[in-house]
Amino acid sequence: MKHLSRDMDRIKRRILSMGALVEGAVHRSMNALLCRDATLAGEVIAGDKRIDAEEVELEEECLKVLALHQPFAQDLRFIITVLKVNNDLERMGDLAVNIAERARFLSVRPELSVHVPVPEIAEKVRHMLRDALDCLVERDVTLARKVIDADDDVDDLHRETYGVLIDIMKAEPERVERASSLISSARNLERIADLATNIAEDVVFLVEGDVIRHGRA
Amino acid sequence: MKHLSRDMDRIKRRILSMGALVEGAVHRSMNALLCRDATLAGEVIAGDKRIDAEEVELEEECLKVLALHQPFAQDLRFIITVLKVNNDLERMGDLAVNIAERARFLSVRPELSVHVPVPEIAEKVRHMLRDALDCLVERDVTLARKVIDADDDVDDLHRETYGVLIDIMKAEPERVERASSLISSARNLERIADLATNIAEDVVFLVEGDVIRHGRA
Repeated sequence: MKHLSRDMDRIKRRILSMGALVEGAVHRSMNALLCRDATLAGEVIAGDKRIDAEEVELEEECLKVLALHQPFAQDLRFIITVLKVNNDLERMGDLAVNIAERARFLSVRPELSVHVPVPEIAEKVRHMLRDALDCLVERDVTLARKVIDADDDVDDLHRETYGVLIDIMKAEPERVERASSLISSARNLERIADLATNIAEDVVFLVEGDVIRHGRA
Repeated sequence: MKHLSRDMDRIKRRILSMGALVEGAVHRSMNALLCRDATLAGEVIAGDKRIDAEEVELEEECLKVLALHQPFAQDLRFIITVLKVNNDLERMGDLAVNIAERARFLSVRPELSVHVPVPEIAEKVRHMLRDALDCLVERDVTLARKVIDADDDVDDLHRETYGVLIDIMKAEPERVERASSLISSARNLERIADLATNIAEDVVFLVEGDVIRHGRA
């Protein structure tokens, strides 16, 4: 039993360090996009290998703990939640790579001067991701619900961005490719927010045993 | 032990029926897009509730079996794989809803006559999804590798589609919105193919204990 608690602590530490890696990748991909920094974009792309490797290792560790200790009740649920969160984080890493690829594409082209709330989306997504990880480790349902609510704001900002960029593409054909890349970046950010929301929903389920997934309008 | 084997059989049946539901949704969303059928699109959107409910129930059942029987080795790995596949299938259902929404949008607008290989992508994705489910239940690594290989074709076709549609948007501003909806549909299909590939990779891992995820170029 003592070994189980030691192993559970290690899993908790590892999912946090996985989260920190992914948070860094998301943050750097956004900076690469906003600052037109191809070098930074390249770092995000190269760094995804490590995130992938961490995901595989953490999953293996969870399986080992399940097989070795056959935990039940809360511990079992926690490990299953970590397996899901681990998977969500790895997907966020892939989305950060997508953003970095678009950032690299845009960095060598004329600046697309346009007023869209992409920096605001980026900022909100960053907070959501951090809060999602915190609420998992702290088992904080109030914080989890904050993350879930924030997703609606991101959806609104994303819709606004899409509308503005579609209008630009209609008006100025020479900006189609760049606007399309920015649409893609905004969508990838919005998907990162969705995954952070998934994590928060899983935390509510973990703590309250209450399925709120799919319950939102 | 007898109870475990009975419960494992039930899990196997349920993941297959979840797969069949999602396969149906993907297929109908594609038909709605290709045949400009808003009614069919509406059915896909309405039907997603059932997929969401099935996901939650199957996950609960897996957790119960884990807690009750504390299975190990192959059975434990199989249940963990089912949990992941279950999650992937539910995401595919969401992507089918996205496609259905675009289908509905396009169905009430003038036809966007354009030669892009979206029907070919749809056909390939359909086969990939079916094969991914078969290879899971049959533990068929050869079939799993076929799914993984097919993903490259889908990526090529998706890239081709994107290029053609970007050119159309540049040349004809009045087609920007419709072309953008078709880009989005093709991307959602490509993501369904990615998730089918995830499933196939998990099957290889389940059977061979070999991590091939993230190993692809």
